[in-house]
Amino acid sequence: MRIALIGFGSVGRALARLVADKREEFPLRLVGVHTARHGTAYGPGGLGAEPRLGEAAQSVEEFLDRAGAEAAVELTTLNPATGEPALSHIRAAFARSLHVVTANKGPIAHAYAALAREARQAGVEFRFESTVMDGAPVFNLVRRTLPGVRVNGFTGVLNSTTKVVIAAMREGLPIEDGIERARRMGITEADASFDIDGWDSAVKAAALANVLMEAEVTPYDVDRRGIGRLTPERVMELAGSGKTVVLATRGRRTASGVKLRVRAEVLAETDLLAAPQGTSNLLLLHTDLMGTVGTISIDPGVEQTAYGVFSDLVDIGRMRGWEEKRPAR
Amino acid sequence: MRIALIGFGSVGRALARLVADKREEFPLRLVGVHTARHGTAYGPGGLGAEPRLGEAAQSVEEFLDRAGAEAAVELTTLNPATGEPALSHIRAAFARSLHVVTANKGPIAHAYAALAREARQAGVEFRFESTVMDGAPVFNLVRRTLPGVRVNGFTGVLNSTTKVVIAAMREGLPIEDGIERARRMGITEADASFDIDGWDSAVKAAALANVLMEAEVTPYDVDRRGIGRLTPERVMELAGSGKTVVLATRGRRTASGVKLRVRAEVLAETDLLAAPQGTSNLLLLHTDLMGTVGTISIDPGVEQTAYGVFSDLVDIGRMRGWEEKRPAR
Repeated sequence: MRIALIGFGSVGRALARLVADKREEFPLRLVGVHTARHGTAYGPGGLGAEPRLGEAAQSVEEFLDRAGAEAAVELTTLNPATGEPALSHIRAAFARSLHVVTANKGPIAHAYAALAREARQAGVEFRFESTVMDGAPVFNLVRRTLPGVRVNGFTGVLNSTTKVVIAAMREGLPIEDGIERARRMGITEADASFDIDGWDSAVKAAALANVLMEAEVTPYDVDRRGIGRLTPERVMELAGSGKTVVLATRGRRTASGVKLRVRAEVLAETDLLAAPQGTSNLLLLHTDLMGTVGTISIDPGVEQTAYGVFSDLVDIGRMRGWEEKRPAR
Repeated sequence: MRIALIGFGSVGRALARLVADKREEFPLRLVGVHTARHGTAYGPGGLGAEPRLGEAAQSVEEFLDRAGAEAAVELTTLNPATGEPALSHIRAAFARSLHVVTANKGPIAHAYAALAREARQAGVEFRFESTVMDGAPVFNLVRRTLPGVRVNGFTGVLNSTTKVVIAAMREGLPIEDGIERARRMGITEADASFDIDGWDSAVKAAALANVLMEAEVTPYDVDRRGIGRLTPERVMELAGSGKTVVLATRGRRTASGVKLRVRAEVLAETDLLAAPQGTSNLLLLHTDLMGTVGTISIDPGVEQTAYGVFSDLVDIGRMRGWEEKRPAR
């Protein structure tokens, strides 16, 4: 399957390496890479692990027209308030009958139902495993391993920055020092308020609800409170009685639709939800047939985000009947 | 897909209900049920949720010859030391070109490589999701959502009885009282030593290693120590310093093959491995491409074990091209 990357930051580079490493086993070929800022590369015979970028295409549309791909991978930087420009890129790919895989949660949080419909109309696949939990199986877990199951709710610990900040507060450090620590770890964007105020968690909540619970919501529908008012004094006081604070993301079906909530919750230190630290994260799905079942991911990094995209591409290839060189396990 | 159940205890009954409940959505039909003790039922048109058992077939072979199924589900009581009689039942089904799903971990722990080979030779599928973690996605997680991933090791908290016993010891109760509590919860067999001595965990370790790490081991290859020498005094002393004991199951690849170990490990109460209580369980897979990723299951019961069997049957049906009435999510 020929693939074109839109965006070529750390995830894109890790994906290019992974596709090259696994080319004997999985017939994926990178035929185009495009960035508005650093240029564009085309390679019908395969670009390899480290494509050299030349003159930039005038637009994503021009890039896709020329690249000759079967699938587009959308990895540009997110504007969480709108889902753009990813949303336009995805539609440009659908318009050219390309499958789309994205690691951008914005489009899923803002417009999943419309995009899924448009993909069906275009006769292509649309996947997004890496949008929540950095590539650990969440959407593919439900899609591929939980047939017939209805997801009635979920509980997640999905934001890394707040975990690092709260851990710093337990040591008595002010919120700014915690944010600085998260920034040094490379897990916080320039504007940390996106994490601290619970927006990152709200975007993930909306994405989960839209895909797993057919909710048709946006992040603005999430009842959201962040950790901005939390103080080191309060966190240390709680620690003294064996408690801690976790920014938890919860969804549940109600008679009036899916309710979504992001809150700093006070929990026992021994609570399962308090266990994930740093970039580790945890999602529990509350289901009808399989009870409460979940995924946990320990210290994922950019390679795991890239792997999630890779696993989506492989799933599309398998569905569409490529021939793999290795027998399935 | 026409299915025949060998064994009809609580899991078999839950499965019969589930197949009946979901018959509009998934074309599974129960055409035979056999128990040596309580009798046999045949129903080419479908037996429904509560089959009435009549005269027992003389043998599993006679039952399978008459039932006219496409898949056999093996749910008899396990002899963990040998994997029998499940092993013979599975081979009888293969000999009749039937797909097999089992919830019996014995055959997977003792003879997986041979059975997988025999299934391939017979041109049928062989599945066993419910053998570890009661139906939560473990084997199907790797098979269906982690393409190209190599499992280099695992860490599991997989035995319920020892969790209940250690929790009782934290309250100062002797081991016998903890075992009695587990028995009242319905999670311990007549002979609790199978759990206490770590055999249950060793059987699961061997099953995981055989399937996920191509190990070709048996439970006798597991370096195993149970919780039999643990005392309430020791557990309470550890609790005083924020620690607890967990019967952990670990596997890892080494230069000389896969090493498997079951041990009562002293861990911080806040450790992720210490979080699952009662029948809840947790398995972390240590992989090359996806880092450490895992499954967690909260309070599964017999319905979840039945669901694991159901999910295997659906996966076989999908692979073999049945037509589902509902579009995939």
